[in-house]
Amino acid sequence: MAARVMLQQCLSARLQVKPAEGDRAAEYVQIQRGTLIYVCFFKGATVDLIPKMIKTLLNVKLCEDNTGNHVSVLDVPANILIIPQATLGGKIKGRAMQYHDNIGKEDGKELYALFVAQCEKELALNSKCAEAQVVVKHGTYGNRQVLQMDTNGPYTHLIEF
Amino acid sequence: MAARVMLQQCLSARLQVKPAEGDRAAEYVQIQRGTLIYVCFFKGATVDLIPKMIKTLLNVKLCEDNTGNHVSVLDVPANILIIPQATLGGKIKGRAMQYHDNIGKEDGKELYALFVAQCEKELALNSKCAEAQVVVKHGTYGNRQVLQMDTNGPYTHLIEF
Repeated sequence: MAARVMLQQCLSARLQVKPAEGDRAAEYVQIQRGTLIYVCFFKGATVDLIPKMIKTLLNVKLCEDNTGNHVSVLDVPANILIIPQATLGGKIKGRAMQYHDNIGKEDGKELYALFVAQCEKELALNSKCAEAQVVVKHGTYGNRQVLQMDTNGPYTHLIEF
Repeated sequence: MAARVMLQQCLSARLQVKPAEGDRAAEYVQIQRGTLIYVCFFKGATVDLIPKMIKTLLNVKLCEDNTGNHVSVLDVPANILIIPQATLGGKIKGRAMQYHDNIGKEDGKELYALFVAQCEKELALNSKCAEAQVVVKHGTYGNRQVLQMDTNGPYTHLIEF
């Protein structure tokens, strides 16, 4: 396995991208209706993986349209919030979690940046998405992902690559 | 694999347990700080599995205490919200999700009820939990899990049984 992704659907979500520091308030990004993509890379993941992941994730039919049918996030079209979530790589050992299979920090950061960029690019190229002005927002790699979300059912799915 | 569980940590969470109907408003349960346990059973899961699952989930050290150390949900002690989430059993095929390995509805409902009961029992037997008056709340099996949550980092983990 090179990557593990968890998807949840939301009505709205807000994610901290910069914690408060001194007098400066914390900074957040938010989306309205859309998909949360939690992503974790494992050792051995390479840049070749990213186009395949994005293609799969943007086209899998897990979003409800206004008639209750499941269509892709591109077809709704809906917003996307990408959340780096290295903890998804944890394996239980005794009472603790170990993360031995997770990718190293620098490589993970690079793949994450590519993942975000590729996702933004695909949405920009999609005329339906451009017209609906849906957005891709994302968390800061390595930070604590302070998240609030409101759902009509998270409809949680796991996809491994 | 007989069951898949996803864990997220929350500051508070609210889950619909009965949808609105006619003049009757929807009903919700909520917890303050605690752990969300999303659970999915697969074909072949039996009642023998439940005590092992509960033991593992209540003792794995994934909750932050007030000093930032990770301890078990029993040791915080923190609240628990159990969410049936059959979608976690999905496997991607083409652009769609298939749920062929998921347990049947009646068997799943029975295991879910046992899982909830066993979890409630363990918390009731734990003097620290009893004293702190932490609670176990849970969603309605088979319903849409209308969920709101607020986190200080969901710290998402997957545990398979």
